[in-house]
Order: sequence, then structure tokens, then C-alpha cells
Amino acid sequence: MVSRCFLRQLFEKESSTYTYLLADMAARQAILIDPVIETAERDAKLVQELGLELRYVLNTHVHADHITGTGRLKKLLPGTQSVISRASGAKADLLVGHGDTVKFGGEEVSVIPTPGHTEGCVTYLHKAQGWAFTGDAVLIRGCGRTDFQGGSAANLYDNVWQNVLNLPDSTVLYPAHDYKGQTSSTVGEEKQHNPRLTKTREEFIQIMAGLNLAYPKKIDESLPANIVCGLHDLPDRMKDWL
Amino acid sequence: MVSRCFLRQLFEKESSTYTYLLADMAARQAILIDPVIETAERDAKLVQELGLELRYVLNTHVHADHITGTGRLKKLLPGTQSVISRASGAKADLLVGHGDTVKFGGEEVSVIPTPGHTEGCVTYLHKAQGWAFTGDAVLIRGCGRTDFQGGSAANLYDNVWQNVLNLPDSTVLYPAHDYKGQTSSTVGEEKQHNPRLTKTREEFIQIMAGLNLAYPKKIDESLPANIVCGLHDLPDRMKDWL
Repeated sequence: MVSRCFLRQLFEKESSTYTYLLADMAARQAILIDPVIETAERDAKLVQELGLELRYVLNTHVHADHITGTGRLKKLLPGTQSVISRASGAKADLLVGHGDTVKFGGEEVSVIPTPGHTEGCVTYLHKAQGWAFTGDAVLIRGCGRTDFQGGSAANLYDNVWQNVLNLPDSTVLYPAHDYKGQTSSTVGEEKQHNPRLTKTREEFIQIMAGLNLAYPKKIDESLPANIVCGLHDLPDRMKDWL
Repeated sequence: MVSRCFLRQLFEKESSTYTYLLADMAARQAILIDPVIETAERDAKLVQELGLELRYVLNTHVHADHITGTGRLKKLLPGTQSVISRASGAKADLLVGHGDTVKFGGEEVSVIPTPGHTEGCVTYLHKAQGWAFTGDAVLIRGCGRTDFQGGSAANLYDNVWQNVLNLPDSTVLYPAHDYKGQTSSTVGEEKQHNPRLTKTREEFIQIMAGLNLAYPKKIDESLPANIVCGLHDLPDRMKDWL
């Protein structure tokens, strides 16, 4: 029998962010992908209840809509190391690039570059299970905006088609956000039904240029903390967590 | 290779309700468990995009906190039949009881009585996959209130321990709600970490008697529609959906 990696999806309501806990239950080692500072305590509690050692906290990119839970989790669960892409320009204990793997027990995720929403966006792929944690590169029937942090609609389109939508159709896509209560999708579904990514490259670039989105509410407080994957220049309401 | 039943979890934010789409992807037949009227269109669209025939809409009980999506889904996807427990006293195309099965293609869920939150609560068990859709009987680190609709803390405790927490520890529990962004649990976890259900029967009854919860905001508009699993006496804001 093939051993099955443990996966638990978690949701943070205010920013509609999904956090993912993955674990090798035999080795009791775990990773968290894209935790949020407000729900870090919930996540740490779950890790402890399940008797797991949190090895790494991975971010798919430098988030602009919430403060990462990385720093708070490192404080709550000492020994945990932070991971982000080298291309993000952020600081972390471990900087990763194309093809690198992050191991926890006998399990691993590999790093796939998917820049376009930001310059440093990556997708973490658990190849053995067919799970891709796409951050804001591919959302369910959507994709992340491309108008700040080095974003580029052309880059997003090219990278997503070359590096994510070329995976097997059955690959399950787990995004960093959903605003309609959808929890996952598959490569097959998005290739067929994504209203943006199914367009031609030119049409896609035009759609993204015409979105006219508001300035992200939390970007000014999120970037200083997220660029160090930690507890930096936190807003006053979070000072207790320093 | 064992064929794997398709499962997609969906969320409705206002009532924090989880809806579940299950399907036999070879036979293209599906069921929905606990849909919400506000998100019925989203659910119907997903069913159609996946090329599925929606056979049944199942409710774990007569909900008091939201109007079921059953009636709207029957309208959007003609041919769909409604299912609820006989013990609920509600009307539906198919009334089920202990041990009955609801089939879709080569897949099936069976009916386990778990009254206590309401008199007619059931859990739908997909035995082959080890999935239990517990409604409000078992919530993640919690359970449904027991102070109306024939609720009984003693009944809830006895039925949950006899019929749900006696399942294998690896059984995944999918509740009808979560208010903290948790998406699922397991029998093993709840047996160890549920703050209410791990107590003795007497302590549990005392806890439930002391909750002092507010009257459910939507109970007066929810019950008339949910007791017929359909579009009945809808509030004015929903009249367009009749």
C-alpha cells in the first residue's frame, strides 16, 4: 500500500486565505504552507494536538493582503524554519528556487516557479500525491492580480501554462485564496473552465490590464513583515504577539 | 486499483456551512450534502462543469441557521431528488432511516442515526472511503447545540459515541459547519481532543445545559422552507428564486 501524506486545509476568513498543513504521520514531521498571523495560534495548536514537529513554514510569495503567520509560528513552535523563494527578495531561513525540494519525514514538496502575480511566486508540488499549492498564481476559476510587486500578466500566463497546467489533469490545485467558498480544483478543470487562463495570451493580458482593482487594503502593513517572513513592524493591534 | 470517489468541499460564509459534492466520475452521477440556498447556483454550475448528473440532494437534518439549497437545486437541475431522515418529520422525495443507502453510480453512502442536535439528525457514511458527513452532531472540537427542535444532550452523547466515534480512528469527519476555518477532522482526533465529547456523559449534559445560547437568528425563516426541503414561504429577498 502506498503511504498517504496527511493534508489538512485551513481557512482564515478576513483575508479568505487557505493555509495547508502537510505531514508524514509516521515520522511525525510537518510543514505549513501560507499561514496567516491571526490564525497562527490555531495552527500551532493543531500541530501540537496531532503530535507533530513543524519543520518548515513555506510561503508561496510575499503576500500583500495579510501578514504571514511565519514569525508567530516560529515563536510558538521553536525550531521551525521559514522558507520562501530566492526570487521573492524576502529573507527567510531557507531560500529556494526551481527544482529544490523541501523534505518532512519521507515526504517532500518541490519548487516550481510561477511568477506573474509577484516576481517571486512559486508553486509547491507534492508530486507523489498530485497536489499543487499554487498560491495566487492559479486560483479556482481565476488567478491573482498582476498590477504590483513586479507582477506581469504575460509572465503569469506563460509560467502557469508551462509549469502548472502541464501537470496531469488529475493534479489537485490548492490555492492560497478563494472568495466564493470553493476549496480546490484540478488541472483538468482549470484548463477547461478558468475564465481567464483559457483565453489566448493576448486576451489574457488585456483582461488583466482592464481589471481596475483597488489598492490592497493591507499592503502597507503586510509587506514590511512579510519581506522578512516574520514579526517586523507589526501594527499596534498585534504588538502582544512580538 | 481501488476507484476513488470524487469529493469536493464547498463553503457558505454567512452561515459558515459546508456543502459536499460526491461523485462517481466514471458513471457521472453525483450527490450533494447540505447545500445552502444562497450558494445553490454555484453548486449547480460546478455540477454542470464537471459533466455530472445530480441524483440526490441530502440533508443531515432540518437546519435552523440557513435555508437549504435543496429546492433551488431541484429547480436548477431537474430530475434531482431530495433526501432527509424519516425521523426529521420533514417532507422529501426519499425518506431514509438507519442502515438505508443512497446510491450514485457505483458509490453509496449509508444512513447512521445521530439525533441529539435535532430529533432527526443523521450522519451519512461513505464506508469505502472512510468519510462521515456528520451534520451538526459532531463538529470539529465541538458539537451542535441541543436546546431546540427535540434536541437532547443525552441523546447526542449516546448516539455519537455509539454510532460515530466507534468508527475506525482514521475515519474523516466532515461537519456541516465550522466557525474557525477548520475543514475536517478524524474520529481519532475527536476522541482525544473534542473538549465536550471527551467528558463523561454527566459532565457533557451539564456543559450543554449551561451554554445559554441566543435564539437562532434565522430559525423562523429557515424551518418553514427546510421542513419541505424546498422553496416554501421564502423571505422576500429570495422571491426571485421561486
